[in-house]
Amino acid sequence: MAKKIATPSAVSLDPLAVGIDIGGTGTKFGIVDRNGNVLFSSEISTRGHEEVESFIEELHNNLQPLIEKAGGPGRIRGIGVGAPNGNYYTGTVEYAPNLPWRGIIPLAKLIQNKFQLNTVLTNDANAAAIGEMMYGAAKGMKDFIMITLGTGVGSGIVANGQLILGHDGFAGELGHTIIIPDGRFHPGTGKYGSLESYASATGVTLTAVEMLEKSNEPSLLRDIPKEQLNSKKVYEAAIQDDKLAKEIFDFTGKILGKALANFVMFSSPEAIILFGGLTKAGDLILKPTREHMEENLIQIFQNKVKILISHLRESDAAILGASALVWEIKD
Amino acid sequence: MAKKIATPSAVSLDPLAVGIDIGGTGTKFGIVDRNGNVLFSSEISTRGHEEVESFIEELHNNLQPLIEKAGGPGRIRGIGVGAPNGNYYTGTVEYAPNLPWRGIIPLAKLIQNKFQLNTVLTNDANAAAIGEMMYGAAKGMKDFIMITLGTGVGSGIVANGQLILGHDGFAGELGHTIIIPDGRFHPGTGKYGSLESYASATGVTLTAVEMLEKSNEPSLLRDIPKEQLNSKKVYEAAIQDDKLAKEIFDFTGKILGKALANFVMFSSPEAIILFGGLTKAGDLILKPTREHMEENLIQIFQNKVKILISHLRESDAAILGASALVWEIKD
Repeated sequence: MAKKIATPSAVSLDPLAVGIDIGGTGTKFGIVDRNGNVLFSSEISTRGHEEVESFIEELHNNLQPLIEKAGGPGRIRGIGVGAPNGNYYTGTVEYAPNLPWRGIIPLAKLIQNKFQLNTVLTNDANAAAIGEMMYGAAKGMKDFIMITLGTGVGSGIVANGQLILGHDGFAGELGHTIIIPDGRFHPGTGKYGSLESYASATGVTLTAVEMLEKSNEPSLLRDIPKEQLNSKKVYEAAIQDDKLAKEIFDFTGKILGKALANFVMFSSPEAIILFGGLTKAGDLILKPTREHMEENLIQIFQNKVKILISHLRESDAAILGASALVWEIKD
Repeated sequence: MAKKIATPSAVSLDPLAVGIDIGGTGTKFGIVDRNGNVLFSSEISTRGHEEVESFIEELHNNLQPLIEKAGGPGRIRGIGVGAPNGNYYTGTVEYAPNLPWRGIIPLAKLIQNKFQLNTVLTNDANAAAIGEMMYGAAKGMKDFIMITLGTGVGSGIVANGQLILGHDGFAGELGHTIIIPDGRFHPGTGKYGSLESYASATGVTLTAVEMLEKSNEPSLLRDIPKEQLNSKKVYEAAIQDDKLAKEIFDFTGKILGKALANFVMFSSPEAIILFGGLTKAGDLILKPTREHMEENLIQIFQNKVKILISHLRESDAAILGASALVWEIKD
C-alpha cells in the first residue's frame, strides 16, 4: 500500500522512526516516516542468538546501514521496539517463554546504548495496537482492543485514547485469561483453560488432534500425519467443506467469542481488531466468534461492538506498530 | 471519621457538591465538601416509586432543604449521581433490572431540570471507584479495580488515573463476565455462569441452598428455613466454625479469585478494592479469593496485586463517590 508510493527518493527532511519487531523466530525492522510509510526494512533471525549480546550485534550490523541510507542518525527521532513480554515502563523483556533469552533482559537500554538513539519498548501486541490506531483499522478510535491470533494470543488495549499499560507495564495479557476453568493445559504457563491454549494456531492444531481422536467422522485431515497437522491444513480442509475441519473452527470461534464477550464487558470497546494467521480463515472463524460473543453479552452491549480484521500487511504492521511508539516519546 | 470532625458550623465558603446514590431499595444523598466531609445527608425509598417523576419529586422535597441548610444553591458546584446501569456520556439509566423504572430514563436531565444545578451521572460502582480514589483505599493510585460485592456485583475500573468508560459509557460490567461457562443461571440477564451469579450476596445464598441439598454434612444452616437463608446467616455459621458454611465461602472465593485473575491480566492494577456486604466475611472469603487469584495468574503478575477492603463507611461511601464526580465536571 503506502509502501509502494513512498520510495526512498521521496524522503523529505521530516524526522523518521525506527521500528523493530522481535518475534520468537525472526526480528523485523524498518525505517518509517510519520505517515506510516516503511522506507527501508529488513529482517534477521532471533532464534539463532542464544545470547542477547550477539543478537544486538547482528541487529546493529543490519540496521545501521538502513539508518545511514535514510539520512543518518540525525534524522531518526528514536527507536520503537515491540517484543513479547516487553515492559514499557522498564524497557525490559521479562521471562518471555518464546524468546531464547531467560530472565529479565534490559533490551531497550542495550539497543539505546548500541545505536545512541532514544529507545522505547513495549509488548508486541501493544505496539500492534498503536500501529492500528495510527495507520490501520482503529484509526480515529479511542476505545478498542487488538487481539493477535498467531502462534500465541497477544493483546493490546486502548481506552480513552491511551494504551492500557497497568501499574507495572504488563497490562493486556488477554491470551492468558482463563476461559474454560480446568480446561486445556498450557505448557508455557502451567495454567489450564486459557484463551491462548485454544484460540492460537497451536490451539487449533491441538483441537484438530483431539477431535480426530474423539470422533469417527471421515475427514481430509485423517490423511495428514498427526505431526504435520497445523492450522493452515485445517483451513485448507475447511474450505473444501470438510465437516470436521469446520467444526474445529466452530469450536475455536466459540471459545474466542466467549472470551471477547468478557473483554467487551470490561472496557466496552468500539471495536475488536483481530490480527494474525488465524484471521485468514475469515468467516470460518469469525462467524462463530461473533455469534458466541453476542450470546454471552448482556443486553446493553449487544449488536454494538464491531469485530474487524486488521488490513495492515502483516510484514509491515509489526514494524509500523513498533515505530509508532517513537512519536509518543515526550521531548 | 471525617464526618465527625466537620460540623455544619465549620462550613467555609468553598464550593460544595451533592452526591446521590440510587440503589434498588433506597436512595442516599448528601452535601459533601471537597475534602470528603459529608455535611448533611438523608435517604428516601427508591422502590416505593413506580414512576420516576414521583421519585424526583420526593428527592427534591428531601434534598432541597439540605441544600438550603448548606448555604443555598449558589454554593453547590453540581450534583453527582451514581445509579445501576448509569451512563456517564448520556446521563441516562438504561434497562436497570434492579430499579423500578423500565427502559431508558434520562435521569441526569430530570434531576438537573428539577434542581437547576449541573448534574453528572455514572454507574454506582464507577462512582464508588472515584470515591475510593479521592478519599479511600485507592488514594494516590492510578490503576485499580473496584469491585462491589452486594446484592449484585458491580465494578469500576481506573487505568492511567482515569475511569474506563468505554466508547458508549458502559465499561466495567465485570459482574456479568462469564467465569463458569454453562454455569449457574442469572434470571436478571438470562446468562449462565456470570461472576454475579456466584459472588454476590444472592449468589452465596444460592450456593448455600445447593450445598445443603447436595451434601449430608451436618450444619447450623440446616436449622434455618430455606427461604430465610442469606449470606449473613452463612457468615454467622462460619464464624462458629461450621464446616459447610466455611465451604460456601471457600467456593465463593474460588470463583471470585478466578475472576480477579482474569481482570488482573486485563488491566494489571496495583490493587483490587473490594466493597460491600460480602467483604464483612473478612478472611473467610478473602483467603480463598487471594489463593485462587494467584493460582490463575501467570508469573509476571504473581504476588504483586493487593486485594484491599474499602475502609469508607458504607453509608458515606456511596454519597462520597457520587459527589466526587462533580469535581470532575469541566467548567
